[in-house]
Amino acid sequence: MTAHLLTIGDEILIGQIVDTNSAWMSRQLNLGGISVLGKSSVGDTRQAIVAGVEHAATTAQIIIMTGGLGPTKDDITKSTLVELFDCQLVFHQEVYDSIAAYFQKIGRTIPVEVVRGQSMLPDQAVILPNKVGTASGMWFERGGKVYISLPGVPFEMEYLMTHEVLPRLKAQFSSRPIAHRTLQTACEGESAIAKRIEAFEDSLPSHIKLAYLPTLGQVRLRLTGNWPGEVSPDADDRLSAELDAKKSELRALIPDLVYGEEEETLQEVVGKMLRQQGKQFGTAESCTGGYVAHLITLVPGSSDYFPGSVVSYSYEMKSKLLGVKTSTLETYGAVSGEAVREMAEGARTTLGVDISLAISGIAGPGGGTTDKPVGTVWMAVSDGQRVQVAKHIFGRDRAKNIQLTGVYALNMVRNFLQG
Amino acid sequence: MTAHLLTIGDEILIGQIVDTNSAWMSRQLNLGGISVLGKSSVGDTRQAIVAGVEHAATTAQIIIMTGGLGPTKDDITKSTLVELFDCQLVFHQEVYDSIAAYFQKIGRTIPVEVVRGQSMLPDQAVILPNKVGTASGMWFERGGKVYISLPGVPFEMEYLMTHEVLPRLKAQFSSRPIAHRTLQTACEGESAIAKRIEAFEDSLPSHIKLAYLPTLGQVRLRLTGNWPGEVSPDADDRLSAELDAKKSELRALIPDLVYGEEEETLQEVVGKMLRQQGKQFGTAESCTGGYVAHLITLVPGSSDYFPGSVVSYSYEMKSKLLGVKTSTLETYGAVSGEAVREMAEGARTTLGVDISLAISGIAGPGGGTTDKPVGTVWMAVSDGQRVQVAKHIFGRDRAKNIQLTGVYALNMVRNFLQG
Repeated sequence: MTAHLLTIGDEILIGQIVDTNSAWMSRQLNLGGISVLGKSSVGDTRQAIVAGVEHAATTAQIIIMTGGLGPTKDDITKSTLVELFDCQLVFHQEVYDSIAAYFQKIGRTIPVEVVRGQSMLPDQAVILPNKVGTASGMWFERGGKVYISLPGVPFEMEYLMTHEVLPRLKAQFSSRPIAHRTLQTACEGESAIAKRIEAFEDSLPSHIKLAYLPTLGQVRLRLTGNWPGEVSPDADDRLSAELDAKKSELRALIPDLVYGEEEETLQEVVGKMLRQQGKQFGTAESCTGGYVAHLITLVPGSSDYFPGSVVSYSYEMKSKLLGVKTSTLETYGAVSGEAVREMAEGARTTLGVDISLAISGIAGPGGGTTDKPVGTVWMAVSDGQRVQVAKHIFGRDRAKNIQLTGVYALNMVRNFLQG
Repeated sequence: MTAHLLTIGDEILIGQIVDTNSAWMSRQLNLGGISVLGKSSVGDTRQAIVAGVEHAATTAQIIIMTGGLGPTKDDITKSTLVELFDCQLVFHQEVYDSIAAYFQKIGRTIPVEVVRGQSMLPDQAVILPNKVGTASGMWFERGGKVYISLPGVPFEMEYLMTHEVLPRLKAQFSSRPIAHRTLQTACEGESAIAKRIEAFEDSLPSHIKLAYLPTLGQVRLRLTGNWPGEVSPDADDRLSAELDAKKSELRALIPDLVYGEEEETLQEVVGKMLRQQGKQFGTAESCTGGYVAHLITLVPGSSDYFPGSVVSYSYEMKSKLLGVKTSTLETYGAVSGEAVREMAEGARTTLGVDISLAISGIAGPGGGTTDKPVGTVWMAVSDGQRVQVAKHIFGRDRAKNIQLTGVYALNMVRNFLQG
């Protein structure tokens, strides 16, 4: 099965927003065994949309459009689709009721004519209900091809892809068994990992492929198996068992780097360990400014093991709230092993936790010196008996330094909890 | 003048990387008065590249390709271009010398056959020298159209665009002025904004268009002007002046919603106000778990006005670190106007700041009750004399509730600072 992704909207063409939707969609489609053969973007005009859809249809069997469905006037998408697929806009009462209920639930009022406008949808399309917004998805079929139109707001698109589009595509097109297994790694680069697992990779049969999917400070290793033989009733199970075995083999080669599987995040893994060990955890953050506490508390139920955090951005807060000695700050500076050690101890007392993480660094772009260049970050983890201290030198970009520090710090806590 | 951007590379189609190049290129081309009418991405095969180039040529006068020119995989792209433009690859001694000099300068060695491969270039193309990498740009012309091929590595592409492509395009084509103005708004939806500015929108001349670009809790309003008449020497200035006037008019219609212009963020605007007013600011966060402190400290130099924050996730931390009365928590609960009021007061004392923000809510998915459903968030801003308290009910998604709370809380601080 092949797909083409068509993005509709001037905001993409003038470069005002970066198109992250189509990368996400490509990954999801790939996981479902659908290859994306092309992507394109067109502006908000009838002519451009028609030309875009027609071009897309020459390249693939499934055409997925995003954008151009919001409740305001710059939307020409629906009327163009109606024309293209030879149908008419009709009022859908059930969509109207659902949008009205949605706005009531989120406690907002919205003009009735807007709800009405969003409830006018093509009579020949399957309507894909959007439970997280006002713009419904639409599913058209013509000449053996499927044309799907989705809103461009990322979380609405993701909702519709996950709950409507992917299940329907799977049901409609029976395809060869395909399966995936993912291992999550942190704190090591693609090429260093590749070197360590070279023999494993070379030994993989031709129907199993390994992909390296890097993000900042992390690499996901994804094994994809395509069932190679005739499709038998037990094909799915056998392919799954084969991938599970390969995944275990791979994990055993790099146990220090692998922190989780599938969609697990570092903060979920750390949270699970804290819960299992019955430990209370807290952070004392300087350069990350609360980012690690934010990651920890993104996990539902984190209040069970996380009572709180002190963001001590100034010298004074480090002394007042965490008891860091003025002499330490004067002698070694706030960005030092000594300072994070005292911050970690102070956090344990102030927050009343068993284990604490302390972070202090120079996120940039200013504040660097020859001894401590921008990107220098110290971190410490302590349980009162064991204290681990580490120093990293990241890059020059402030936002990236904060994010990388989050990854390295959480992985340090994970390793600490593993003993 | 019109352009089409064509990205070559499987890594885009499988969603392994997000294409940031084309957003950057679009902005640069727009500034130069060149409209990007379309974008597309194709894989690393001869057939896909040929189809992609041919399609691009049907949509615009200038076709700019990126990708597929690195030293490991440039074979397909270059040989396909050579075939498309009826020419031959020949050895370019000056390119060879330049690449060799480049590697010597950055202190790296590279196999001589790689340098030789990168020096084999089409005889009928204008070679665009790449002084920051090994892959040269190429400029072809055919049938009145220009075809440009650039490497996909962002800083190499940016170097070639800035130093070669844009100056050459400007010299070759005189183009019509185009300009954009953006206003940033928070805490109101697309449709409600549309209603308030309906008359303004209806009154816009046909050469000025308004677009709504929504993200979570925010909407960007973008005015785009295309110079309508003959291109005169003062056309750029006159179009700019016209857009500036329209922007001011629009801003005056919704002063409560507009927090900034162009690429400004809420945290930058709040930071600027705090700096101007000489105020120290801090946060006391429960359900956001440090997220607002993180946003504030994403801004370089925020230590000037932000000494720190207390993340008080548990009842105990709210009492111990912020002095919230146990009786308040018992009577009204932690998610209440009374609690955030006391948290805000406590934060002023504990953090020693002039103005504080306090947040307490139920991010979900658990923890909701009939009185306080998931998504209920209380927030307070205080300077010791004035206290503002607000309650919002967002949705059911934890991560989104945290993000929305960040937007609403920062906007509340902005309004508080405005008096």
